[in-house]
Amino acid sequence: MLIVQKYGGTSVGTLERIDEVAKRVIENKKAGNDLVVVVSAMSGVTNQLIEYAEYFAKNAPQDRDMDMLLSSGERVTSALLSIALNAKGYPAISLSGRGAGITTDTSATKARIKSIDTKNIDEALKDGKIVVIAGFQGVNEHGQVTTLGRGGSDLSAVAIAGALKADLCEIYTDVDGVYTTDPRIEPNAKKLEKISYDEMLELASMGAKVLQNRSVELAKKLNVNLVTRSSFNHNEGTLITGEENMTNMEDVVISGIALDKNQARVTMRSVLDRPGTSAEIFKALADKNINVDMIIQNAGQKDGTTNLGFTVPQNEVDSARAVVEKYASSVEFDSDVVKVSIVGVGMKSHSGVASVAFSTLAAEGINIEMISTSEIKISIIVAAKYGELAVRALHKAYKLDA
Amino acid sequence: MLIVQKYGGTSVGTLERIDEVAKRVIENKKAGNDLVVVVSAMSGVTNQLIEYAEYFAKNAPQDRDMDMLLSSGERVTSALLSIALNAKGYPAISLSGRGAGITTDTSATKARIKSIDTKNIDEALKDGKIVVIAGFQGVNEHGQVTTLGRGGSDLSAVAIAGALKADLCEIYTDVDGVYTTDPRIEPNAKKLEKISYDEMLELASMGAKVLQNRSVELAKKLNVNLVTRSSFNHNEGTLITGEENMTNMEDVVISGIALDKNQARVTMRSVLDRPGTSAEIFKALADKNINVDMIIQNAGQKDGTTNLGFTVPQNEVDSARAVVEKYASSVEFDSDVVKVSIVGVGMKSHSGVASVAFSTLAAEGINIEMISTSEIKISIIVAAKYGELAVRALHKAYKLDA
Repeated sequence: MLIVQKYGGTSVGTLERIDEVAKRVIENKKAGNDLVVVVSAMSGVTNQLIEYAEYFAKNAPQDRDMDMLLSSGERVTSALLSIALNAKGYPAISLSGRGAGITTDTSATKARIKSIDTKNIDEALKDGKIVVIAGFQGVNEHGQVTTLGRGGSDLSAVAIAGALKADLCEIYTDVDGVYTTDPRIEPNAKKLEKISYDEMLELASMGAKVLQNRSVELAKKLNVNLVTRSSFNHNEGTLITGEENMTNMEDVVISGIALDKNQARVTMRSVLDRPGTSAEIFKALADKNINVDMIIQNAGQKDGTTNLGFTVPQNEVDSARAVVEKYASSVEFDSDVVKVSIVGVGMKSHSGVASVAFSTLAAEGINIEMISTSEIKISIIVAAKYGELAVRALHKAYKLDA
Repeated sequence: MLIVQKYGGTSVGTLERIDEVAKRVIENKKAGNDLVVVVSAMSGVTNQLIEYAEYFAKNAPQDRDMDMLLSSGERVTSALLSIALNAKGYPAISLSGRGAGITTDTSATKARIKSIDTKNIDEALKDGKIVVIAGFQGVNEHGQVTTLGRGGSDLSAVAIAGALKADLCEIYTDVDGVYTTDPRIEPNAKKLEKISYDEMLELASMGAKVLQNRSVELAKKLNVNLVTRSSFNHNEGTLITGEENMTNMEDVVISGIALDKNQARVTMRSVLDRPGTSAEIFKALADKNINVDMIIQNAGQKDGTTNLGFTVPQNEVDSARAVVEKYASSVEFDSDVVKVSIVGVGMKSHSGVASVAFSTLAAEGINIEMISTSEIKISIIVAAKYGELAVRALHKAYKLDA
């Protein structure tokens, strides 16, 4: 098999940890696999470099200099891992993003990958070498180093796996995989063996921070079989793959319950109910880069107005307030809420999923303040104090602890 | 003027120091100059990276991985200085060795510069930008990062100054310039205003470690006017230039006195005095990479043998012993010696320089154990205990304190 492995910051956080990673890579090599290993900066390094920059510029600039600065962390780790592998008798070579053939657009500090020329990787693999690649970076059409933004090393790994048509792309972090819900809230949470790209996208955007959405979206697009697992043990991880690869899909209705404590509810009262008003409001919010999540608009009232509800991240409440106040007679902001989401591709073909949620929450005396549904997700806003109770009750109701 | 400045590790050793460097660069920019600034890694960083590598491989490898590893330090400094300059309102851009167009040969960890394509530098200068370049590195014909070995950032600066035909190449360190002798030995040592390339080469090889010889040799070859000065004050430094630029050369007979405590004297007795023997011995030493410095061979004795004396660095005594023992009836090694060197281009046209040295040392009761002379240098081996006394006496005798 050709395996792309990616090790995150905590997995390579110390020299001892890098040594452990080297041993694990060698185990995989010994088992007869070809290995391409993408590494992050040692944990803390990137933040330290940002602090350095902020010593000079209060807000770290988003330019070529930051690309040059931040890309250095991953280069160090890739060199060290390659040195470790060579020292253990396993020929390896370290490549920068440029060396790995990763071409990006010209955006500074958050470039997007355009293409990968795998020539250098192919050659090294043909020579029997383990290829170690500095994640998080590429090179633009002007030959300048670029960086890919937060989660960039995952993106590097997925893109390389796609370009190489690798059998597997393993993302190593300090967690075992994707759980049915946060085990700190529900000790009976189970690790999922498999989950579809779409389910993962819904879970990730709601606080299950194993993988960033950009990486899952890219994996879906390139049809890369992603595995998230821990570098601190040898437990099996969770395979994130296409729905077509999900066996027994009919049986699995719900994959997980997510809790997002970062949302605030906005209620706009007596908004003029005529075509284009909502569009105008949400365009104004988008222009200020405010991330609107759930949107609820009820049927209009007799006085020609309507109430409009939506959620925004809590730290964007003030910006949102400035934008929307002129559109309503009054606007209420409530940060004392949480969003509980029920996710599962099985939902598509099963009725009654929503009614289980309603009856479960009712039985616990939890009032539903907002609700929105999609094909594979039901999201519910409840008072913050009920958040964890709601997660545990729903986890049990959908038999996720079975 | 177009000025290339190079700041060494202690000059950029902390964020505060980098800020000071930014201010100094801006002073020069405000004065109407075009500025290209080459930076080293922050002091300690390169050694730390080497220690990291040695955690995995007892002797840090000399390969591509080390190039990748070590080149990161200078990249960080260049990005930070550029960020600092931009934040202060002076447009700047950071370039890696590759970005600066520095092409080297393919040797890992000690590459030699082959050529410089100044296109990117020229463009940035034309845009009015201050160009900040990561020293110590380039790129080979395969597109891989290379590093230039110890003192590599000085080399980068000199090579860039040569390629740009810069008016001046200033090398900033934590010392004020080149002195007539080590001020710790002779408090009356004077800083030299000017010194020729050749004199500097002789002084540098003998312990005046302001600049490495590779850089001075390159400056001489490219006819670059080098200035060494301190980044910790605004004192004038020392200009290192061609003899043709030395005014009043006739008056200056001796430029400085150097003390080298690292030499050991080897005396081989009863070496067979026939053609080819010396060549064989010194070839054998060269094959083991032993750096032979002074060589003295007296006229042969009546028994067809001769005594052969030379000096080697003290840490190479054991290697030298293994090589030479078979060539002589007995070999003596004496590490309890020092080498005192008198350097000056004026020596060429002035007789009597050597006799001053002899009479000065004799007056102090210092026995000369070996002596060798060149056009611009007289080197004398004396017992270690007399080293500093000899330096002070000669410094006074040649009126260097005047």
